[in-house]
Amino acid sequence: MDGPREGCSIAAALRVVGDRWSLLVVRELLYGAHRYGEIARGTGAATDVLAARLKRLVEAGVVEKRLYSQRPPRWEYHLTDAGGELAPVLVVLLGWGDRWANDRVPVVLEHGEHPHAVVPVLVCADCGRPVDEGGLHARTADGVAHPMGA
Amino acid sequence: MDGPREGCSIAAALRVVGDRWSLLVVRELLYGAHRYGEIARGTGAATDVLAARLKRLVEAGVVEKRLYSQRPPRWEYHLTDAGGELAPVLVVLLGWGDRWANDRVPVVLEHGEHPHAVVPVLVCADCGRPVDEGGLHARTADGVAHPMGA
Repeated sequence: MDGPREGCSIAAALRVVGDRWSLLVVRELLYGAHRYGEIARGTGAATDVLAARLKRLVEAGVVEKRLYSQRPPRWEYHLTDAGGELAPVLVVLLGWGDRWANDRVPVVLEHGEHPHAVVPVLVCADCGRPVDEGGLHARTADGVAHPMGA
Repeated sequence: MDGPREGCSIAAALRVVGDRWSLLVVRELLYGAHRYGEIARGTGAATDVLAARLKRLVEAGVVEKRLYSQRPPRWEYHLTDAGGELAPVLVVLLGWGDRWANDRVPVVLEHGEHPHAVVPVLVCADCGRPVDEGGLHARTADGVAHPMGA
Protein backbone atom coordinates (compact mmCIF):
# COMPACT_ATOMS: atom_id res chain seq x y z
CA MET A 1 0.00 0.00 0.00
CA ASP A 2 1.25 3.42 -0.91
CA GLY A 3 -1.07 5.06 1.58
CA PRO A 4 -1.39 8.78 0.99
CA ARG A 5 1.08 8.67 -1.93
CA GLU A 6 -1.31 6.70 -4.14
CA GLY A 7 -2.54 9.12 -6.80
CA CYS A 8 -1.34 11.99 -4.57
CA SER A 9 -2.67 15.43 -5.53
CA ILE A 10 0.53 17.08 -4.30
CA ALA A 11 2.43 15.03 -6.87
CA ALA A 12 -0.23 15.80 -9.48
CA ALA A 13 0.11 19.53 -8.81
CA LEU A 14 3.90 19.31 -8.96
CA ARG A 15 3.75 17.61 -12.34
CA VAL A 16 2.21 20.87 -13.57
CA VAL A 17 4.03 23.54 -11.55
CA GLY A 18 6.87 21.66 -9.84
CA ASP A 19 9.70 23.72 -11.25
CA ARG A 20 10.89 27.21 -10.52
CA TRP A 21 10.39 28.63 -14.00
CA SER A 22 6.74 27.68 -14.15
CA LEU A 23 6.05 29.34 -10.81
CA LEU A 24 8.06 32.41 -11.83
CA VAL A 25 5.88 32.63 -14.94
CA VAL A 26 2.81 32.54 -12.70
CA ARG A 27 4.40 35.32 -10.59
CA GLU A 28 4.92 37.46 -13.70
CA LEU A 29 1.32 37.01 -14.79
CA LEU A 30 0.13 37.94 -11.28
CA TYR A 31 2.22 41.11 -11.51
CA GLY A 32 0.53 41.97 -14.79
CA ALA A 33 3.27 41.03 -17.26
CA HIS A 34 1.43 39.35 -20.13
CA ARG A 35 3.64 39.58 -23.19
CA TYR A 36 6.36 37.13 -24.00
CA GLY A 37 9.16 39.70 -23.80
CA GLU A 38 7.95 41.01 -20.44
CA ILE A 39 7.71 37.51 -19.02
CA ALA A 40 11.15 36.65 -20.34
CA ARG A 41 12.61 39.79 -18.78
CA GLY A 42 10.80 39.34 -15.47
CA THR A 43 11.73 35.68 -15.00
CA GLY A 44 15.18 35.75 -16.57
CA ALA A 45 14.36 32.39 -18.15
CA ALA A 46 16.21 31.33 -21.28
CA THR A 47 14.04 31.52 -24.41
CA ASP A 48 13.78 27.78 -25.00
CA VAL A 49 13.01 27.10 -21.34
CA LEU A 50 10.36 29.81 -21.24
CA ALA A 51 8.72 28.66 -24.47
CA ALA A 52 8.55 25.07 -23.19
CA ARG A 53 7.12 26.10 -19.82
CA LEU A 54 4.48 28.37 -21.35
CA LYS A 55 3.44 25.60 -23.74
CA ARG A 56 3.07 23.14 -20.87
CA LEU A 57 1.20 25.63 -18.70
CA VAL A 58 -1.23 26.31 -21.55
CA GLU A 59 -1.72 22.56 -22.12
CA ALA A 60 -2.33 22.07 -18.40
CA GLY A 61 -4.99 24.79 -18.33
CA VAL A 62 -3.05 27.13 -16.04
CA VAL A 63 -2.37 29.79 -18.67
CA GLU A 64 -4.35 30.87 -21.72
CA LYS A 65 -3.17 32.62 -24.85
CA ARG A 66 -5.08 35.62 -26.13
CA LEU A 67 -4.55 37.15 -29.54
CA TYR A 68 -3.87 40.88 -29.19
CA SER A 69 -2.66 41.61 -32.70
CA GLN A 70 -3.84 39.96 -35.90
CA ARG A 71 -1.16 41.09 -38.35
CA PRO A 72 1.28 39.84 -37.38
CA PRO A 73 -0.42 37.43 -34.96
CA ARG A 74 0.75 38.20 -31.44
CA TRP A 75 -0.31 36.61 -28.22
CA GLU A 76 -0.62 37.60 -24.62
CA TYR A 77 -0.56 35.13 -21.76
CA HIS A 78 -3.09 35.25 -18.95
CA LEU A 79 -3.83 33.09 -15.93
CA THR A 80 -6.93 30.94 -16.12
CA ASP A 81 -9.05 30.40 -13.00
CA ALA A 82 -6.79 27.44 -12.21
CA GLY A 83 -3.72 29.63 -12.58
CA GLY A 84 -5.14 32.39 -10.41
CA GLU A 85 -5.68 29.87 -7.63
CA LEU A 86 -1.92 29.37 -7.48
CA ALA A 87 -1.55 32.84 -5.95
CA PRO A 88 -1.60 31.46 -2.38
CA VAL A 89 1.29 29.14 -3.27
CA LEU A 90 3.38 32.17 -4.23
CA VAL A 91 2.31 34.20 -1.20
CA VAL A 92 3.33 31.35 1.11
CA LEU A 93 6.62 30.89 -0.77
CA LEU A 94 7.32 34.62 -0.53
CA GLY A 95 6.84 34.57 3.24
CA TRP A 96 8.97 31.44 3.55
CA GLY A 97 11.68 32.96 1.38
CA ASP A 98 11.70 36.13 3.51
CA ARG A 99 12.23 34.04 6.64
CA TRP A 100 14.54 31.30 5.44
CA ALA A 101 16.03 31.90 2.01
CA ASN A 102 16.78 35.60 1.74
CA ASP A 103 19.01 37.92 3.73
CA ARG A 104 16.59 40.79 3.30
CA VAL A 105 12.90 41.49 2.76
CA PRO A 106 12.84 43.24 -0.61
CA VAL A 107 9.05 43.39 -0.86
CA VAL A 108 6.26 43.77 1.67
CA LEU A 109 2.92 42.32 0.66
CA GLU A 110 0.09 44.61 1.66
CA HIS A 111 -3.67 44.62 1.33
CA GLY A 112 -6.79 46.21 2.78
CA GLU A 113 -8.63 49.51 2.51
CA HIS A 114 -6.09 50.84 4.96
CA PRO A 115 -3.09 49.08 3.44
CA HIS A 116 -1.15 47.04 5.97
CA ALA A 117 1.44 44.29 5.78
CA VAL A 118 -0.15 40.90 5.14
CA VAL A 119 0.59 38.27 7.79
CA PRO A 120 -0.35 35.14 5.89
CA VAL A 121 -1.57 32.15 7.84
CA LEU A 122 -3.29 29.09 6.44
CA VAL A 123 -6.47 28.46 8.37
CA CYS A 124 -9.41 26.10 8.01
CA ALA A 125 -12.47 27.95 6.77
CA ASP A 126 -14.63 25.41 8.58
CA CYS A 127 -13.34 25.82 12.14
CA GLY A 128 -11.18 28.93 11.82
CA ARG A 129 -8.11 27.28 13.34
CA PRO A 130 -4.70 27.04 11.69
CA VAL A 131 -4.60 24.05 9.37
CA ASP A 132 -1.59 22.52 11.11
CA GLU A 133 -3.31 22.57 14.50
CA GLY A 134 -5.38 19.72 15.85
CA GLY A 135 -3.57 16.69 14.53
CA LEU A 136 -3.46 17.32 10.80
CA HIS A 137 -3.66 14.02 8.93
CA ALA A 138 -4.37 12.62 5.49
CA ARG A 139 -7.35 10.26 5.41
CA THR A 140 -7.10 7.67 2.64
CA ALA A 141 -10.02 5.88 1.00
CA ASP A 142 -9.46 2.84 3.25
CA GLY A 143 -10.22 5.04 6.26
CA VAL A 144 -6.68 5.13 7.60
CA ALA A 145 -5.40 8.43 9.03
CA HIS A 146 -1.81 9.25 8.13
CA PRO A 147 -0.39 11.94 10.45
CA MET A 148 1.15 14.89 8.64
CA GLY A 149 3.47 17.18 10.52
CA ALA A 150 7.07 18.06 11.23
CA MET B 1 14.02 48.95 -12.40
CA ASP B 2 13.11 45.38 -11.68
CA GLY B 3 10.45 46.43 -9.19
CA PRO B 4 9.22 43.51 -7.12
CA ARG B 5 11.55 41.05 -8.92
CA GLU B 6 14.68 42.62 -7.46
CA GLY B 7 15.99 40.14 -4.89
CA CYS B 8 12.54 38.48 -4.91
CA SER B 9 11.92 36.10 -2.01
CA ILE B 10 9.69 33.91 -4.20
CA ALA B 11 12.68 33.35 -6.46
CA ALA B 12 14.90 32.81 -3.40
CA ALA B 13 12.51 30.18 -2.05
CA LEU B 14 12.30 28.49 -5.45
CA ARG B 15 16.08 28.23 -5.66
CA VAL B 16 15.78 25.95 -2.62
CA VAL B 17 12.55 24.04 -3.22
CA GLY B 18 11.61 24.91 -6.80
CA ASP B 19 11.54 21.37 -8.11
CA ARG B 20 9.10 18.54 -7.64
CA TRP B 21 11.52 16.08 -6.05
CA SER B 22 12.53 18.46 -3.28
CA LEU B 23 8.92 19.12 -2.37
CA LEU B 24 8.11 15.40 -2.54
CA VAL B 25 10.98 14.80 -0.12
CA VAL B 26 9.42 17.37 2.22
CA ARG B 27 6.08 15.55 1.83
CA GLU B 28 7.71 12.23 2.82
CA LEU B 29 9.30 13.77 5.91
CA LEU B 30 5.95 15.29 6.89
CA TYR B 31 4.39 11.82 6.58
CA GLY B 32 7.04 10.43 8.91
CA ALA B 33 9.33 8.68 6.41
CA HIS B 34 12.84 9.47 7.62
CA ARG B 35 15.14 6.80 6.22
CA TYR B 36 16.67 6.96 2.80
CA GLY B 37 14.94 3.81 1.55
CA GLU B 38 11.54 4.99 2.76
CA ILE B 39 12.01 8.38 1.14
CA ALA B 40 13.16 6.76 -2.10
CA ARG B 41 10.13 4.47 -2.14
CA GLY B 42 7.69 7.22 -1.19
CA THR B 43 8.89 9.72 -3.77
CA GLY B 44 9.81 7.31 -6.55
CA ALA B 45 12.89 9.46 -7.19
CA ALA B 46 15.90 7.91 -8.87
CA THR B 47 18.79 7.32 -6.46
CA ASP B 48 21.12 9.95 -7.91
CA VAL B 49 18.35 12.55 -8.05
CA LEU B 50 17.29 11.83 -4.49
CA ALA B 51 20.83 11.95 -3.13
CA ALA B 52 21.45 15.30 -4.85
CA ARG B 53 18.18 16.78 -3.57
CA LEU B 54 18.75 15.63 -0.01
CA LYS B 55 22.25 17.06 -0.07
CA ARG B 56 20.99 20.41 -1.30
CA LEU B 57 18.12 20.47 1.21
CA VAL B 58 20.58 19.79 4.03
CA GLU B 59 22.92 22.54 2.79
CA ALA B 60 19.97 24.95 2.58
CA GLY B 61 18.95 24.21 6.17
CA VAL B 62 15.60 22.63 5.26
CA VAL B 63 16.55 19.08 6.27
CA GLU B 64 18.93 17.80 8.91
CA LYS B 65 20.67 14.44 9.14
CA ARG B 66 20.61 12.50 12.39
CA LEU B 67 22.78 9.50 13.12
CA TYR B 68 20.63 6.58 14.22
CA SER B 69 23.20 3.79 13.98
CA GLN B 70 26.91 4.10 14.70
CA ARG B 71 28.21 0.84 13.21
CA PRO B 72 27.67 1.06 10.38
CA PRO B 73 26.91 4.81 10.39
CA ARG B 74 23.34 5.34 9.25
CA TRP B 75 21.40 8.53 8.97
CA GLU B 76 17.83 9.64 9.22
CA TYR B 77 16.49 12.80 7.60
CA HIS B 78 14.30 15.23 9.50
CA LEU B 79 12.77 18.60 8.72
CA THR B 80 14.32 21.59 10.45
CA ASP B 81 12.09 24.46 11.61
CA ALA B 82 12.54 25.96 8.15
CA GLY B 83 11.47 22.68 6.55
CA GLY B 84 8.43 22.33 8.79
CA GLU B 85 7.27 25.76 7.69
CA LEU B 86 6.93 24.43 4.15
CA ALA B 87 3.91 22.39 5.24
CA PRO B 88 1.45 25.12 4.15
CA VAL B 89 2.98 25.05 0.66
CA LEU B 90 2.14 21.36 0.39
CA VAL B 91 -1.34 21.78 1.87
CA VAL B 92 -2.12 24.49 -0.69
CA LEU B 93 -0.65 22.40 -3.51
CA LEU B 94 -2.72 19.40 -2.42
CA GLY B 95 -5.92 21.42 -2.53
CA TRP B 96 -4.96 22.89 -5.89
CA GLY B 97 -4.11 19.45 -7.25
CA ASP B 98 -7.47 18.09 -6.08
CA ARG B 99 -9.27 20.86 -7.96
CA TRP B 100 -7.20 21.25 -11.08
CA ALA B 101 -4.66 18.48 -11.65
CA ASN B 102 -6.25 15.24 -10.52
CA ASP B 103 -9.35 13.38 -11.65
CA ARG B 104 -10.05 12.21 -8.14
CA VAL B 105 -9.49 13.17 -4.51
CA PRO B 106 -7.36 10.34 -3.16
CA VAL B 107 -6.76 11.88 0.24
CA VAL B 108 -8.83 14.12 2.49
CA LEU B 109 -6.88 16.32 4.87
CA GLU B 110 -8.50 16.41 8.28
CA HIS B 111 -7.77 18.05 11.61
CA GLY B 112 -9.40 19.02 14.89
CA GLU B 113 -10.53 17.31 18.07
CA HIS B 114 -13.61 16.25 16.13
CA PRO B 115 -11.81 15.45 12.90
CA HIS B 116 -13.26 17.22 9.91
CA ALA B 117 -12.11 17.96 6.39
CA VAL B 118 -9.76 20.92 6.27
CA VAL B 119 -10.92 23.79 4.04
CA PRO B 120 -7.66 25.67 3.64
CA VAL B 121 -7.78 29.39 3.06
CA LEU B 122 -4.92 31.83 3.30
CA VAL B 123 -5.94 34.71 5.52
CA CYS B 124 -4.16 37.70 7.02
CA ALA B 125 -3.58 37.18 10.74
CA ASP B 126 -3.72 40.94 11.20
CA CYS B 127 -7.16 41.69 9.75
CA GLY B 128 -8.62 38.20 9.38
CA ARG B 129 -9.52 38.69 5.72
CA PRO B 130 -8.37 36.48 2.85
CA VAL B 131 -4.94 37.56 1.68
CA ASP B 132 -6.08 38.11 -1.90
CA GLU B 133 -8.87 40.48 -0.84
CA GLY B 134 -8.44 44.20 -0.54
CA GLY B 135 -6.08 44.99 -3.38
CA LEU B 136 -3.13 42.74 -2.66
CA HIS B 137 0.09 44.40 -3.79
CA ALA B 138 3.83 44.17 -3.34
CA ARG B 139 5.37 47.32 -1.85
CA THR B 140 8.99 47.82 -2.89
CA ALA B 141 11.61 49.79 -0.96
CA ASP B 142 11.03 52.83 -3.18
CA GLY B 143 7.44 52.98 -1.90
CA VAL B 144 5.80 51.85 -5.12
CA ALA B 145 2.86 49.44 -4.88
CA HIS B 146 2.82 46.69 -7.51
CA PRO B 147 -0.65 45.11 -7.80
CA MET B 148 -0.64 41.34 -7.55
CA GLY B 149 -3.63 39.41 -8.73
CA ALA B 150 -5.11 37.39 -11.56
